Amino acid sequence: MNYKKNPDQLIIDCHGHYTTAPSELGEYREQQKVDIKRDPLFEHVKGVIDISDDQIRDSIENAQLKMQRERGTDLTLFSPRASWMGHHIGNQTTSKYWTMHCNDLIYRITQLYPKNFIGVAQLPQSPKANLKASVAELERCVTELGFVGCNLNPDPSGGYWSSPRLDDKYWYPIYEKMSELKVPAMIHVSASCHHCFDTTGSHYLGADTTAFQHFMSAVTLFKDFPELKFIIPHGGGAVPYHWGRFRGLAEMQKIPPLEEVILKHIYFDTCVYHQKGIDLLMNVIPIENILFASEMIGAVRGIDPQTGNYFDDTKRYVDDCNLNNEQKQKIFSINTRKVFSRLDSILQKVDLL
Amino acid sequence: MNYKKNPDQLIIDCHGHYTTAPSELGEYREQQKVDIKRDPLFEHVKGVIDISDDQIRDSIENAQLKMQRERGTDLTLFSPRASWMGHHIGNQTTSKYWTMHCNDLIYRITQLYPKNFIGVAQLPQSPKANLKASVAELERCVTELGFVGCNLNPDPSGGYWSSPRLDDKYWYPIYEKMSELKVPAMIHVSASCHHCFDTTGSHYLGADTTAFQHFMSAVTLFKDFPELKFIIPHGGGAVPYHWGRFRGLAEMQKIPPLEEVILKHIYFDTCVYHQKGIDLLMNVIPIENILFASEMIGAVRGIDPQTGNYFDDTKRYVDDCNLNNEQKQKIFSINTRKVFSRLDSILQKVDLL
Repeated sequence: MNYKKNPDQLIIDCHGHYTTAPSELGEYREQQKVDIKRDPLFEHVKGVIDISDDQIRDSIENAQLKMQRERGTDLTLFSPRASWMGHHIGNQTTSKYWTMHCNDLIYRITQLYPKNFIGVAQLPQSPKANLKASVAELERCVTELGFVGCNLNPDPSGGYWSSPRLDDKYWYPIYEKMSELKVPAMIHVSASCHHCFDTTGSHYLGADTTAFQHFMSAVTLFKDFPELKFIIPHGGGAVPYHWGRFRGLAEMQKIPPLEEVILKHIYFDTCVYHQKGIDLLMNVIPIENILFASEMIGAVRGIDPQTGNYFDDTKRYVDDCNLNNEQKQKIFSINTRKVFSRLDSILQKVDLL
Repeated sequence: MNYKKNPDQLIIDCHGHYTTAPSELGEYREQQKVDIKRDPLFEHVKGVIDISDDQIRDSIENAQLKMQRERGTDLTLFSPRASWMGHHIGNQTTSKYWTMHCNDLIYRITQLYPKNFIGVAQLPQSPKANLKASVAELERCVTELGFVGCNLNPDPSGGYWSSPRLDDKYWYPIYEKMSELKVPAMIHVSASCHHCFDTTGSHYLGADTTAFQHFMSAVTLFKDFPELKFIIPHGGGAVPYHWGRFRGLAEMQKIPPLEEVILKHIYFDTCVYHQKGIDLLMNVIPIENILFASEMIGAVRGIDPQTGNYFDDTKRYVDDCNLNNEQKQKIFSINTRKVFSRLDSILQKVDLL
């Protein structure tokens, strides 16, 4: 059957991680940890992880693919498991080879299910390293593996926030490469190794809020990179709920109205796991700055006893919120295809456009 | 005139700071900084700050008192300026004497305007110190100065979060004293000295979210202290917007439903500076767990161009939200009088009850 959806009616989930990888991936990581425990400066080699296509199919078909079908979403922008990026672990070579394997697995998924998954890259960040390896890996993922974006960790130290603020020149090499390749970054931290921050709660949400404030206060960043685009996940952390506070702070800082600041640069995803939260997001943030996402199968895997549906079945919330069809189409696909500007050419290649 | 309001119709702002203190207070602080710059272990003495009653009147009458009248609130639970607590500065003696002066000033305000301001204590926390000095100062403030609560800083290191989690036994001495005196604590950080966190934005809101997660995951804390009560300010940080996420995380952690967890222990204030945010708070969090507050004159001092009113005039938002009168009275005074259990006896003393 050669039935093609109206592309504006595609439902693209811009935030999914491969959280169900075969155990061989975890075993490779454990060996890395053994190696750096012996010697923190251990120079890793890439090595081989032996995972068959059938193993990948098994790990996907009863999980993310099944969920896509059940929930009626078409495709997922898919990246390695965020909490496993673990940039704080080991040294630059630890992150480099771990990241290459994680991205290679994503690539294989996109080859096995080209209409369902499109790749988004993990970057081999490391707290004490510059961004050279990340620039190289982003280039490899986009130009060789067909990926359309990346996840950028604002805090590779895992809760200690030892890196410069996101508008600092430290980050410019990756922003240059993103601009050159025309790909956006989702700002996404990984596991917290800080005793006060809980990975999928306070750490994720705190990081989202922190990233937003770096960007809103940035003086030259978006002049230096006029096409740079960032997605702030988990519905923007605390930002939409405190939109009045941030608008007020912006006024006091004499920066332009926040709607102008975010217009072409900052997008929020819909990973907010209850109807009232999604309603607020839709009521507060311009529709053009919202991208559909669920992060399934992710942090919150259960069924909400209040609704009988999965907490992370965010499509239901968007379906049920008070927007017209045109607005919903923007959120489900049109905005996402604009922000991920390489997406359309991939969609054409796999006959979805 | 001996007209007395129905006490259930009082409008009590449970979160105000003395942000307009005469310059002598700041000068004292600057001298402390000079002293500890010379010698980080400098042993301060309390010394004297020469501020007259007239100076205090000047600093209040055209500021918080005027705002109370204009906005139609009756009284404010008033504590020293939160961003100036600066627990990360200096050593234990630095914080001890600074805090005593700040609290003494609050006391004088409560004596000058006994019907308008009731004291809430700053604590002399210090990152490397135990809580002995804080326990002593809380006792002094409650038993000698008539204060009804305190502000507890979960991160006296100013953004580095070097203290144990809030359910750790490290904090038990202050919880014991709070329980003994029957006073609650508002969990409130101070200025950030961390380059990544912005004091009144990402730092405040991140801390609120972090504190909530410590409490929700606490295993024995509320068994050990069955009467302990905390207010999480700024509308609970990111928590109500992500109530679905936290409910889902609670399920995965096999802890009781969050409504049960918070019921007798965790309260959110209304320092959310736009109508839609307040509406979400009211729709998501049980009314019994919400306390009216504005934090005026605080972080956001301007007028919202979208409404023509002050961003922090939160009474308007509560007035305009979709609640009945009984619910509003709970938020404006009934809940607050329950949480601050020493409040009624003070209100009687000043003839407001």
